[in-house]
Amino acid sequence: MKLMTLLSDFGSNNSYVSQMKGVALSMTDATIVDITHDIAPHNISEGAFILRTSVPYFPVGTVHVAVVDPGVGTARRGIVVTTRTQILVGPDNGILIPAAKRLGDFTVYEIANQNLTLNSVSNTFHGRDVFAPVAAHILNGILFEQIGPIITDFVDLDFGNYEITDKTATGKIIYIDSFGNIITNIDGIRLKQVLSYDKRIMLFLGDKQLEIPFVKSYNFVKDGEILATVGSSNLLEIALNQGNANKKLGVKPFEDIKILFN
Amino acid sequence: MKLMTLLSDFGSNNSYVSQMKGVALSMTDATIVDITHDIAPHNISEGAFILRTSVPYFPVGTVHVAVVDPGVGTARRGIVVTTRTQILVGPDNGILIPAAKRLGDFTVYEIANQNLTLNSVSNTFHGRDVFAPVAAHILNGILFEQIGPIITDFVDLDFGNYEITDKTATGKIIYIDSFGNIITNIDGIRLKQVLSYDKRIMLFLGDKQLEIPFVKSYNFVKDGEILATVGSSNLLEIALNQGNANKKLGVKPFEDIKILFN
Amino acid sequence: MKLMTLLSDFGSNNSYVSQMKGVALSMTDATIVDITHDIAPHNISEGAFILRTSVPYFPVGTVHVAVVDPGVGTARRGIVVTTRTQILVGPDNGILIPAAKRLGDFTVYEIANQNLTLNSVSNTFHGRDVFAPVAAHILNGILFEQIGPIITDFVDLDFGNYEITDKTATGKIIYIDSFGNIITNIDGIRLKQVLSYDKRIMLFLGDKQLEIPFVKSYNFVKDGEILATVGSSNLLEIALNQGNANKKLGVKPFEDIKILFN
Repeated sequence: MKLMTLLSDFGSNNSYVSQMKGVALSMTDATIVDITHDIAPHNISEGAFILRTSVPYFPVGTVHVAVVDPGVGTARRGIVVTTRTQILVGPDNGILIPAAKRLGDFTVYEIANQNLTLNSVSNTFHGRDVFAPVAAHILNGILFEQIGPIITDFVDLDFGNYEITDKTATGKIIYIDSFGNIITNIDGIRLKQVLSYDKRIMLFLGDKQLEIPFVKSYNFVKDGEILATVGSSNLLEIALNQGNANKKLGVKPFEDIKILFN
Repeated sequence: MKLMTLLSDFGSNNSYVSQMKGVALSMTDATIVDITHDIAPHNISEGAFILRTSVPYFPVGTVHVAVVDPGVGTARRGIVVTTRTQILVGPDNGILIPAAKRLGDFTVYEIANQNLTLNSVSNTFHGRDVFAPVAAHILNGILFEQIGPIITDFVDLDFGNYEITDKTATGKIIYIDSFGNIITNIDGIRLKQVLSYDKRIMLFLGDKQLEIPFVKSYNFVKDGEILATVGSSNLLEIALNQGNANKKLGVKPFEDIKILFN
Repeated sequence: MKLMTLLSDFGSNNSYVSQMKGVALSMTDATIVDITHDIAPHNISEGAFILRTSVPYFPVGTVHVAVVDPGVGTARRGIVVTTRTQILVGPDNGILIPAAKRLGDFTVYEIANQNLTLNSVSNTFHGRDVFAPVAAHILNGILFEQIGPIITDFVDLDFGNYEITDKTATGKIIYIDSFGNIITNIDGIRLKQVLSYDKRIMLFLGDKQLEIPFVKSYNFVKDGEILATVGSSNLLEIALNQGNANKKLGVKPFEDIKILFN
C-alpha cells in the first residue's frame, strides 16, 4: 500500500486540497490521508507541531506532504526529508523538522530536479505544482538522488527547551487543542519519573497561580475541575474535566508554564 | 474491499483522526470513510444519532468506529457490537446502540483481550490505542470470540418514544442539522399512513403554535415558508424553504414536539 | 483506479456525505476524494466556481458528483455531463456547466433510467439516492446511452464576461477564498500579454480606488501591502501579503472590478 498524508493551512471551503489530490492520483495509486487543513493561516509552528504528533503512528514508507508556505513564490527552497522509516515533503521553512527529529536521524534534499514537478509551476501554489508531484514520484520509487543535492543549511525549528528537576518543571505552551486542552513542551514520560499521579502541584501560568492535581486521566477529578495530566502525545497538558480549560485560563501558544511539586 | 468508518468529536484542527488512521492503515489495507468529526464535544447522544443515520447505507462487513468518549481513562469498558451485517466499535456509553438497533439483532462483546490493542495504551486516547486497532483486527478476520466475553449489561441509549394517533403525533426533537432543519424522533413512514401530503397541520413547539403545511419536499411551499416533511432519514422534520428553520424557531434537541391534524 | 469526487453544501457536522460514500462503495470499489462540502448553503454559483477550479487536475475517467441542490424534490432534472476526459453528475441547475466548459466539448444526458437509482428515492436527498448510484454505475462501465436522452435545454451558468484592453481590464469578483484573497473572472494569462510584472496599476473596487503593484507572487511586496497577482487558477486576484485582503477591502462576489495601467 502506497500511503501519502497531507497537512496544510488551506481550510476546507475551497478546492486547493482536492487539486493536490487530483495531481497525486493522476501519477500514483496512493491512499491519501488528511492530517488537517485547519492550521491557522501561515502558522508554520502550529503546522510543525501537529505534523510531529501524527507521524509516529504511520507505517514505514509513508510520504507526508506539509504545506504551510507563506514564502511561496520567493527563493525559499522546497525540500524532501528522509528518515529511516518515513519521508517528509514541503517548503524549507522548518515545518518538517520537528517531525523528522521525532522519527530519528534524517537527511534533507533540496528539490532541484524540475522534471519532477508539473510542467507549469505557479508562483502561489507549490503544494499542487511541486510537493504533491514529488511525493507521488517518491511513492513510485524514484531514487532520492534524483531529487536534488543534500543540504545542511535547511531552516531549523524547535519548540524551545523544557527543564525538569525533582521539584519543578518549566517549559512552554506549544498548542491548544479543539477541546481547550493546553499542551506543553514538557516531556510527560520524564516527568512521571519524578512526580507520581494524584499528587497536588502548584501551576504558574502568566500571572495566574493555581493548586491542581496531577492525575492519570481527565475523569480522576470532579466535573469542571482543572487538572494536569500526560496527554496522548506524551506531553504534560493542563485540562478541565468535561470542559474547556483554556476558556478558564486564557493562555496562548509560547507562553511560559511552570509547575512546582515536592 | 475492507471498509472502516470513523466518527468522533475530535474536530478538524488537530491530528487525532489521522493518528487513528495511521494506526489502522499500519495493520490493514482498509478504505476509511469519515462520518463526521464535528460532533459537539462529549455529546454522546448526538454522536449516536448521527451514527444511526449513516450505517444503513454501508455495505455488509463495514466496521464503524465511534469515539465520543468523555469517560476515557476510567473503568468504562470498550465494546464491539456485532449485527447480522455490520460491526460497531467504541466505548460502552451508549453511542453504538441506536445504530445497532437500526441494523437489527445485535450482540455486545467487551474488549478484554489486550493483545489486540497498541502496546502502550494511553489514558486519554482509546480511539487510537484500542478502537482503531481492534477494528483493524476485525477487518483482518479475527474471530469475535477472541475479543472478549459477551456482555448484556452494556449502557443503553434511545431517543425516547413517539406516539402517532389518527389526529396527532407527539415526540421529541433529536437533532438540528447544518441547514437548520429540525429533525424529530417521529417515524415518517408510519406518519404518512395517517396524514397525507398537502394537508395543513398545527405545530406545537415550546410555547409556539403555528399552522404549517405537510408537504412532499421543501420546494412545495414558497421561499421563506415553514413546512413539515419526511426527511432523508425517514423522520418527521420541520424545515424552511430556501432557509434556516431553526433561526426562526430557536429550539434545542430533546424539546417536545406535537402536531395536530385530522 | 476508479476515481470519484464529491462536492456539496452539506457541511461537516452531519452524516450526509458519508451516506453518499456508503452507497457508492456498496456498488463500486472507487477511491473517493472530497472537493469540499463547505459551499455556502444553496449557493449554486460558488459550487460551480469551486468545481471548475478543481477538475483540470484530475485524471481521465474521474467522475465528479456535485450536489448544491435547492430544487431537490421538484421537477428539476438530474443530469450527467460527459466531456472528452471526465464525467460530471448532479442536478440540472448550472452547477456542472462551468467545469464542463473548462474541460472542452460536452454532452448532457438527462438521468431518466430509474434502474440506476436507489429503490426508494427520497424527496430531499438525491445526492445519496440518485447521483451517487449513477456515478457508481458510470465507474462500473455503464453505457451513457442507458442513462437517458441527450438534452440541449439544460440550465446554463457562466461567470460573466471580462474585457482586457491595452490599458484596462474589467470584470467581476467571483470568489473570496479562506485566506481573504479576492479572485476575479479576468483571465490572467491574457492579462500578462498586455501587463508586465512589477508595474503599478490603479484598482477600482466599489467606491474604493487604490494604486497597487502587479507582482509575480505575494512576497514581492512588503508584509501588509495590497497587491494584484495571477493566482493558482490563472485568474487575476487581489491579495495582501501575509494577511487577509478582504478584511481590508470588504467586497463581495459579483461586484465589479476594474484595473487601469499603461
